[in-house]
Parts: sequence; C-alpha cells; structure tokens
Amino acid sequence: MILALAGGVGGARLARGLAAILPADGLTVAVNTGDDFEHLGLLVCPDIDTVCYTLAGINNTAQGWGLEGESWSFMDALGKLGGEAWFNLGDRDLATHVLRTAMIGRHDLSEITALLAARMGIVHRIVPMSDQRVRTIVDTDEGALPFQHYFVRRRAEPRFRGIGFEGIDEARPSAGLLAAIDDPALEAIILCPSNPVLSITPILALPGLRDRLTGRKVPIVAVSPFIGGRAIKGPAAKIMDEIGIATTPAGLAAYFNGLLDGIVIDRTDAGEVAGGVALHVTDTLMRDIDDQRRLAMETLAFARSLG
Amino acid sequence: MILALAGGVGGARLARGLAAILPADGLTVAVNTGDDFEHLGLLVCPDIDTVCYTLAGINNTAQGWGLEGESWSFMDALGKLGGEAWFNLGDRDLATHVLRTAMIGRHDLSEITALLAARMGIVHRIVPMSDQRVRTIVDTDEGALPFQHYFVRRRAEPRFRGIGFEGIDEARPSAGLLAAIDDPALEAIILCPSNPVLSITPILALPGLRDRLTGRKVPIVAVSPFIGGRAIKGPAAKIMDEIGIATTPAGLAAYFNGLLDGIVIDRTDAGEVAGGVALHVTDTLMRDIDDQRRLAMETLAFARSLG
Repeated sequence: MILALAGGVGGARLARGLAAILPADGLTVAVNTGDDFEHLGLLVCPDIDTVCYTLAGINNTAQGWGLEGESWSFMDALGKLGGEAWFNLGDRDLATHVLRTAMIGRHDLSEITALLAARMGIVHRIVPMSDQRVRTIVDTDEGALPFQHYFVRRRAEPRFRGIGFEGIDEARPSAGLLAAIDDPALEAIILCPSNPVLSITPILALPGLRDRLTGRKVPIVAVSPFIGGRAIKGPAAKIMDEIGIATTPAGLAAYFNGLLDGIVIDRTDAGEVAGGVALHVTDTLMRDIDDQRRLAMETLAFARSLG
Repeated sequence: MILALAGGVGGARLARGLAAILPADGLTVAVNTGDDFEHLGLLVCPDIDTVCYTLAGINNTAQGWGLEGESWSFMDALGKLGGEAWFNLGDRDLATHVLRTAMIGRHDLSEITALLAARMGIVHRIVPMSDQRVRTIVDTDEGALPFQHYFVRRRAEPRFRGIGFEGIDEARPSAGLLAAIDDPALEAIILCPSNPVLSITPILALPGLRDRLTGRKVPIVAVSPFIGGRAIKGPAAKIMDEIGIATTPAGLAAYFNGLLDGIVIDRTDAGEVAGGVALHVTDTLMRDIDDQRRLAMETLAFARSLG
C-alpha cells in the first residue's frame, strides 16, 4: 500500500504512473485542498480535479490543466454578461464544479470526490487532504492574497513572502488519508513532484499530520519537481528563490526539514548531495504514460530499498 | 406606457414586437416566475431568460427556447458524471444561471434581471412578477408535480387537473410591476400569447394584483395563443381541454373571468364571439420580427381604441 501526497499537474502525473502499476486497493492519493475556492458560487477544487482528470486519462496534456477537447462557450457568454472572467472554467469542467457544489451540503468532500472519481472510471482512492475548509493565503509584496488570486489572477507575479492556511487549526486530515497512514500494509509515503510550497506544505500543515507520517516509520520519499534548478511548469522555482531556498536536492531536503528519507532527482542534477537524505537519479520528466509508469516504478523500488 | 404580462416563447415574441415600436420608458414586461426552479443548485428562471434572450435577439428561433448557436458540452459531461440530465442547460445559457445564482443572496431577482438584461443590451424594463419565491405546482393524474417536472421531465403528458402556487400567499408583486400599474401614463395592459394557465395565471394569482389591474381602468387586452383551437407551441390547448375550457375566444374570455376588455385573435377564428369582450382579427402567427412588430402595432391600436 502506497500513500501519495499530491497537488496539481506534476503530482497528478506521478499519481497516474503509480495507479498504472498498483492495484486498486494499493494506492491512496491524498490531494491538497488549500487552493480550493468558491468562484461564482461554485466550489472549485483545482488539484482534486487535476488528479482525477489525469488518472481518468481525460486531462488536456498539451495545456497542462483542464480537460481534453474542452470548449469555452460558457466563458464567452460569461464575459459578455460582465461576469468575472479571470478564472477559466471550461464547459465540460463546469459539470464537475456544478455537481460538486450541488452535493456539498449533503455530502462531505471525501464522499463527493469518491463519487465523481468513480464516475470517471477511477478505481484507486483519491481523497482530499481534509473535509474541513482550508484556504491557502499567500503573503506577498502586494499584501495577503487568496491563493487563486495570487496564482491565477496575478499569475504568481507578486513576490512571495510566506504562506498561511485559513481554517487549518480546525481542520483534520480526512478519514481516507488517516486510513492510508494507519493501514498496516503501508509501505511508503511518496511526495509527488508538485509545488513543494503551494501544494505539499498545506497537506503537511494539517494539525498532527506530520508527526503521524514520520511516526509511521515507513520511507518517505519525494520526487523532486526541479530539473537543473527549474520547475517543469509553474512558479515553484521562483517561489523557492523568493524564500531563499535553493531548488536543489539539498534545498528540498532542508525545506521539508527532516521529513524525507529519500529524493528522486533528475539526471541533470546527478552529483548533488542532500545531507543524510538518500538520492535516486533517473529521468524525472514525464511526457507520457510510459514515463509516468517508469518513474513510478523506480520511485517505488527506491522507497522500498529504504525500508 | 404599456404593461405586458408574459410567460415564455409566445409571450416573448410579442414583447419583442412591443419593444420594437415603443421607447425604452414606454414598456414594462412583467414575467412569470412560477416556473423558476432550483436545478443542480442553480436558480433557473426560464421565462425571464426567454424574454431577455428574445428581446436581445440572441434566442434560438428554430428551437423555440434557449440561445442561438448554443453548445452542449456541459450537458454531455454532466451525463457522463451521472448528473441529472433531463433539463437541458446549454453552455452559454449556463452563464446566465451561474451569474444569477451567484448574485441571488446579495440582490433580489428584480435587480439581477435588470442587470443581466442591461448587459444583453436590452433597454426596456423586464421585471419578474415578484421578488418572492413562487413555485407553480401542477396537480395531475400522477399526483402533484413541481412545474418543470410536469412540463419538461414528463413533457406535460400527465393529465392536468389543477394548478397551485407555493409561496403565493407571502408573495407581493415586484416594485417594477407595481410601478408600471401605477404609472399615470399607463395606456393599456397586454396579456401576451403565452400559455394562459401555466404562464399568465401565476402572475394574476399574486395577492391583490388582479384588483389592481382592473382598478386601473385601462384596457386589458389579451393576444390569443390559439389559432383554430390549437396552440402554436406547447401544451396550452391540451391543458385547456383537460380543464374543460374551449380554446376559443369565448373560452379564453371565460377563463380570464371578466378581466379582459379585448382579445386579438387569428383570422382562422374570425366569426367567433366572446360575449362582451371586443375582438380584433388579424394574423397572430409571429414568424419573424416583422410579424412581431406588426402584431404589436395592431394590438396597441386595438387596445387604444378600447380606452
């Protein structure tokens, strides 16, 4: 049994690789919900959707987010009606948000996620990090910004100064996440190559979670989202720079502050060291399902070697 | 100043004709909200939308409802996710529902309707019949059905036995409707050729409204939705049959029970009589804006002749 912690695109790709090689009951993907937000009255959960769409194989691989074959009539009409048009909601994607929003009073996010994932044909467990509302707030040189305002509306351009999580004190890890941690068959915990600061930190910020993960005494392995100091996509490297942490294996190990037993890094970074953290060198760029599967297999083999 | 009472398609067409010949401050269209409903968490107001889309000239004329050039990706995705797919929500149409639903807590339906209509480029006043929630319930041989379940889901197939309006006792006519009635310049009240039972009756059922209309002592004229005893579209004739009222000028006059001063009827029905109610015979089928404008002009001239 493997527990994977994931945010958006990069994390979803590795999760898909893990799903391709693990049985249905052999993988739980716990997903960041700090970047969830209420937009136009709809509950939008970008990371959960990215993970689900990617595992279902219906994601837009070229664009990196959203659905393959998406159309944009809703956004066009919305713009003409003067609605807020800074966050793109595709016509097909909208069905997910509308259904989720219609259910959220009667069901919790874990139940809704399980239902929608099942309807997308996903057999592995995808669980939100929490069923309580947690909202990432980014402290920037333009002031405190709700996550999507920082990330999408302002395109992560403001200088990052810190991060906070509204609601985190009252939030608990979801039952599915706790069940995965407590599963006697748990072999390893994988931090997927999502943005360490924006995507993984909210999960680790859940009260008591970090201690529960380390207390489990199974290998905790991160797949680095950096290749040659750069992120494949998104502002991860910019943010690490802005908080003064190197986008190297050593920087990543330091950022996670003793959590990691191992890091999978790209060949470009071969020769780097990360203190007492074991490194596994391979090709970490995932262009297709073959890359995803191979990286997942290598990551699992590496994690098991640390057990 | 003209006050028009309207429901969906037929009513919207005459309203468009009236808008084409009257100045911006010379027409108020008060629209049935009895068929509004909450669907998938969205507040859908089919008659208001039909009137707005028609006056804005963006309606789908061939289909008779919805928007021209509509696309259906949302419905396709919704169906795949197992969502309720019996009520069609087009991708573009959805922008109206989402925006309205996002605003409904902070604004009343009158304000939202005015805002959306303005953004569609409509200069005439379109007002909901009420800002309070009124919901038409149709009593049928299959039991009591919420309006859209009767009308769309069951395609008006169950035998109609009666109609009721949830919330009507607490509902008041909207400020815009009352302002139109009380306008010193009011010349006539036009009942547009919408379904008399399903579309016009909910408006007239508002507490005190009927008395206010008749007390105003201006001509009240209906444009018959029937041609040769048949409705152009929809189940109006079937319902009239089921409640035992003839789809003739006399039947219409009887159904509205003393409210009408005149009825505009089609040439097909020339020779019919309707007790003490004046009749004007013309072509009532509205295929295009020219038909709409001509019928609106004739209706106004007829109404004025009764003043």
